[in-house]
Amino acid sequence: MGEASMITVLIMAGGKGTRFWPLSTEEKPKQFLSLISENTMIQMTVDRVKKIVPIERIFISTGEKYVNLIKEQIADIPEDNIIVEPEGRNTAPCILLSTLMIERKYKNSTIVVLPSDHLIKNENVFVETLLKANEFINDCNDSIITLGIEPNRIETGYGYIEKSNEKANLGNSDIIKVNKFVEKPDFVTAEKYIRSEKYLWNAGMFIWKSKKILELFKCYMNSTYNALKDIAILEESKLTEYISDNYYLTEATSIDYGIMEKINDIFVIPCNFGWDDIGSWTSVERYSKADLNGNVINHNSIMHNSTKNIIVSGKMVVFNNINDVVLVETDDVIFLSTKKDDQEVKNIINKIDYIK
Amino acid sequence: MGEASMITVLIMAGGKGTRFWPLSTEEKPKQFLSLISENTMIQMTVDRVKKIVPIERIFISTGEKYVNLIKEQIADIPEDNIIVEPEGRNTAPCILLSTLMIERKYKNSTIVVLPSDHLIKNENVFVETLLKANEFINDCNDSIITLGIEPNRIETGYGYIEKSNEKANLGNSDIIKVNKFVEKPDFVTAEKYIRSEKYLWNAGMFIWKSKKILELFKCYMNSTYNALKDIAILEESKLTEYISDNYYLTEATSIDYGIMEKINDIFVIPCNFGWDDIGSWTSVERYSKADLNGNVINHNSIMHNSTKNIIVSGKMVVFNNINDVVLVETDDVIFLSTKKDDQEVKNIINKIDYIK
Repeated sequence: MGEASMITVLIMAGGKGTRFWPLSTEEKPKQFLSLISENTMIQMTVDRVKKIVPIERIFISTGEKYVNLIKEQIADIPEDNIIVEPEGRNTAPCILLSTLMIERKYKNSTIVVLPSDHLIKNENVFVETLLKANEFINDCNDSIITLGIEPNRIETGYGYIEKSNEKANLGNSDIIKVNKFVEKPDFVTAEKYIRSEKYLWNAGMFIWKSKKILELFKCYMNSTYNALKDIAILEESKLTEYISDNYYLTEATSIDYGIMEKINDIFVIPCNFGWDDIGSWTSVERYSKADLNGNVINHNSIMHNSTKNIIVSGKMVVFNNINDVVLVETDDVIFLSTKKDDQEVKNIINKIDYIK
Repeated sequence: MGEASMITVLIMAGGKGTRFWPLSTEEKPKQFLSLISENTMIQMTVDRVKKIVPIERIFISTGEKYVNLIKEQIADIPEDNIIVEPEGRNTAPCILLSTLMIERKYKNSTIVVLPSDHLIKNENVFVETLLKANEFINDCNDSIITLGIEPNRIETGYGYIEKSNEKANLGNSDIIKVNKFVEKPDFVTAEKYIRSEKYLWNAGMFIWKSKKILELFKCYMNSTYNALKDIAILEESKLTEYISDNYYLTEATSIDYGIMEKINDIFVIPCNFGWDDIGSWTSVERYSKADLNGNVINHNSIMHNSTKNIIVSGKMVVFNNINDVVLVETDDVIFLSTKKDDQEVKNIINKIDYIK
C-alpha cells in the first residue's frame, strides 16, 4: 500500500477565450468574469477548493497579463503561488511547469488539477469526490485519476472518456478503469456515445501524485521534461530567467494528447455534481434567474412583449417585440445576436481590427 | 388689389414628442435632434427659410426649457426673436401670442407659419411656393393660405385637406379653394381619399397677413384674443409678467380646430417638394444612406448576416443574424424594437419612472 501526501491544487487560468465577447476579451477572459454569480468564475473555483485545502496550497497558473487580475480577484493568494507561463503552450507544458514549481514548496504532494472557469453546482459532492480520489491515490500511489462527467445531453462540444468494464480492484465500485480518451465527436457519434452509456464528458480535472506525473513527462514527453526539469534544483534568483529561456523549448500540446492518450492505466470517477463548462450564453441562461417571460436581465430593464432574451448591460435596456436574442454591452461595444447563433462571434471578431 | 408687406417667419418649436425615445426626450425633443443630416431638424428648418428672409425676421416659439437649446443650435437668432410660451397650450394660443409679438417688431407682416421638425427635400420648390403664396396674399390681403402635400401613400397618421373644384380667381391654377379640413382617417377612409385624388396632407404650414389672422382670432376665439391682445400695446418691461398672467386664460386648442375648420375661405397650394414629417425610425431610414444590406448605421459597426436594421449609437455595434430592428443607445438607455412596432414606444415610456 502507498503513503499519504499533502493535497495541493493547481488551477489553470491561462485561457484567452472570447466566447463571451465583447464581455470577455483577451484582456479579460471568461475566468475573470461574473457570469453566474457576483463572484467571477475563478473566484468560485478557488472558493470551492478552499473546502479541502488552505489558500497556501492553492496554485494558479496563468499568463503574465493576467497576474494583476488574479491578485485583484484572489486577494489572499500568496504571490508565489501564482505560476506565470512565459507564453501559452497548451496544458502539458503548463502542468509540467506548475508541478515542478509546486514541488519546490510541497515535496511530492497529491495534486488536483482543475480548470479555472467551470461551474460546479453541487460543491459538497465535488469535495467528497476529491477526497475519495485522494484516498485511492494514497492507497495506489501511481494512479492517475480523472473526473468524468455523466452526460445529460448529446453534446459535440466536449471530448469524451470511454469507460472500460473494469472496476478498481479495491472494493470501490465508483472508480473505473478508462478504456480511452476520445476527441470531440460529431452529432451522430455523440448520440451513439450517450445511448451506449459507456461514455463520460472529459472535464479536464485530474488527480495524481507529483512524482507520478513527473515520471510520465520523463517517459512520454522527454524533451519537454528536460527543458524544464532544473526548476526542481535551481536557486530562487535564477528561476525566472531559466523559465523564460527554456519554456519555448517545450512541446506545445495538451496533457490529453501528450500523455493521457498514450497510457493505459488511468482511472475515472463518474461524477454527477452539476458540472457545466459555461461555454455559451445559453449555458449562462441555464444557471441564471429569469423573469416570468424567460428573460435574463440585470437591471431595471423593460421587456415589452419580449421573451427569452439574455441581457448584459449597465444601462436600462428596453426591448419591444424582441425574442431569443443576447445583447451584451461594454464600454466600447454593443453586441446583439440571435441566441442560437451566439457562437458565431468567433468568426466575427476576427474581422474587428482592435481585437487582436 | 392689396398692398405688399414684409415677410416674417414663425417656426413653432414647442413640441415635446418622444417618438424617437430614448434619443428624443422631453428634455430634447425631435426638433433638436440630428435625425437626417448633421444638422438638427430645427437648424434645417431655419436654413431653409433663410433663403427668403434674413434671420432678424425669423421667429421661434417654444417653451422655457428649450430656449437654451435654441440659442445653442441657432446661434445667430436675435434673443427677442425667441418667443416663450409660459406653458404648452396647443397651436392656436401659440400662434396668437407669436403674431402679437411679431407685430411689435414688424407691423402687419405676411407671416409664414411652419413646424420646426419636418423634412423638405426640394428646398427650391419650397421657396418658390412660399413666394407664390406671398404674391397671392399681396394681391388678396385677406387670404389664408395653407400648403397641402400631394400624398404618395395611404397614410393614417396625418390630417387631410379636401380640395374644392374652385380655383383662385386670378388665372393662377395652382391655388385652390379648400373644401374642408379633416382629421386623421382610418385606413379604409385614407385609401378612399388617395383614390379620389381630392385630398392633400395637412402639414401645418400657413401663410397669412398678421392683420387677417388677428381678425380671425377676434371673431372665432374671442376670449383667447382678449386674454392676450394687450401685448400689442404694453411697454416692454411689463410684457413677460402680462403673458405669464394671461396665457393660461387662452383656449388650449389647435389652429385647425379653433379657426381653420370654422371658416370657409381658405386656399391651398398643392405641393410636391419632398415633404416628410419624419414621424418614425422608418421615415428616418427613407432619407438615410444604407449599406448594401439595407442597414442604416452610424459608425464602424459590423452587420454579420443582418439586414435592414437602423442603429443609433456612439459605440461599435455588432449584429449577428438580426433583421429589421431599430437599436438606439443613449447615455442611459438601450432601446431595441422591431422596426414595424417602433411606435409602441409611447406605451412603454409611460411605464418608466424617470421619464416624466
